[in-house]
Amino acid sequence: MDTNLNAVPDVVILRLPLYIRALNVLLNEQKDVVSSRQLGSFLQMEPAQIRKDLSYFGRFGKQGRGYNVEFLVNELGQILGLDRKWLTCLVGMGRLGQAIINYPGFAPEGFDIVAAFDSDTRQIGTDVGGIKVLPMLSIGPTIEKRKVAIAIVAVPAQQAQSVVDQLIHAGIKGILNYAPVALKVPTDIVMRNIDPVVSLQSLTFYLLRNQQR
Amino acid sequence: MDTNLNAVPDVVILRLPLYIRALNVLLNEQKDVVSSRQLGSFLQMEPAQIRKDLSYFGRFGKQGRGYNVEFLVNELGQILGLDRKWLTCLVGMGRLGQAIINYPGFAPEGFDIVAAFDSDTRQIGTDVGGIKVLPMLSIGPTIEKRKVAIAIVAVPAQQAQSVVDQLIHAGIKGILNYAPVALKVPTDIVMRNIDPVVSLQSLTFYLLRNQQR
Repeated sequence: MDTNLNAVPDVVILRLPLYIRALNVLLNEQKDVVSSRQLGSFLQMEPAQIRKDLSYFGRFGKQGRGYNVEFLVNELGQILGLDRKWLTCLVGMGRLGQAIINYPGFAPEGFDIVAAFDSDTRQIGTDVGGIKVLPMLSIGPTIEKRKVAIAIVAVPAQQAQSVVDQLIHAGIKGILNYAPVALKVPTDIVMRNIDPVVSLQSLTFYLLRNQQR
Repeated sequence: MDTNLNAVPDVVILRLPLYIRALNVLLNEQKDVVSSRQLGSFLQMEPAQIRKDLSYFGRFGKQGRGYNVEFLVNELGQILGLDRKWLTCLVGMGRLGQAIINYPGFAPEGFDIVAAFDSDTRQIGTDVGGIKVLPMLSIGPTIEKRKVAIAIVAVPAQQAQSVVDQLIHAGIKGILNYAPVALKVPTDIVMRNIDPVVSLQSLTFYLLRNQQR
């Protein structure tokens, strides 16, 4: 593909996983071809927006013929790097960490949690979901040895920045942060924040508007 | 305000909480006025995008003078309904539910978790974070009696749809879903999904691109 991936807006990248989910549902329903209108009604998006988003990556559909579902889902998966395994570690094995390591959604999508760390001596050495909890001092050596690319951070807010600094120092390039705090990372590190409050704060807009109808 | 709130795109509403966070940081730094350029560099967004987003809600800034930080943060908070308390309940008191009820971010932002439910008889009657866990049968009466508006769903995927149906039947209008499954809700119900895999799936795009540089 002779696409300039640097030119693709972040919001478009953020939408690709949603397209992939929708396409996988259609694939399961034995659909071969889908139009931007059908995909739009599925995702509650404008067809023009979908066509524009996909056009960043080259020609996926023939004018008026729709998209080949299987081809599109594979291409988008490749663009996002979902055709490979991503070794992932988890820092923080409190209630949240325990919930994350038992979350069934990561492994089937290629995110293999291969190491877990905690500072609590009562946790260290225990086996959680088949993974042995290691002390924080092991972060560096483990990440280097196993070539872990992604870290999930589930420590309390006040520890999060120092943990993230350690992870980056050890070579981690991607971080999924659950701690309710704004963290600073260098520009070559990619970070996503799980923030339930932000989700609730946009939800209230609609509750209010629907009340006033 | 004589704005037609129905005309505001969802993506704009989703960005308002991020503006509010940035403005609160500026307010703490005793900043009185902020330009769209400053806000843009803070949020890594185009100033023109910020001006366009805010223009949906009327005139917040004077041409070339920037925005009054305190005024803007209050107005946006009012638009989102963040100037009031939202009674919230939590369904599912497993590891994830326990982590959520102990999450320190909800109450300061006006989301008061006032009730918790679980189907596990070992959980029912116990006190978690100052809240007594009630049986699932209590969902209807509790929500009606206490006028709970929002529900957080932290049950396993296979139970989520039935729980959501019960919640809606009881009068819940807004749902924050943690279960890794696509749920169906009527059009007058607002639902947000916490989905860590979707966050990871867009993150990998950048990891891949940075590797190839």
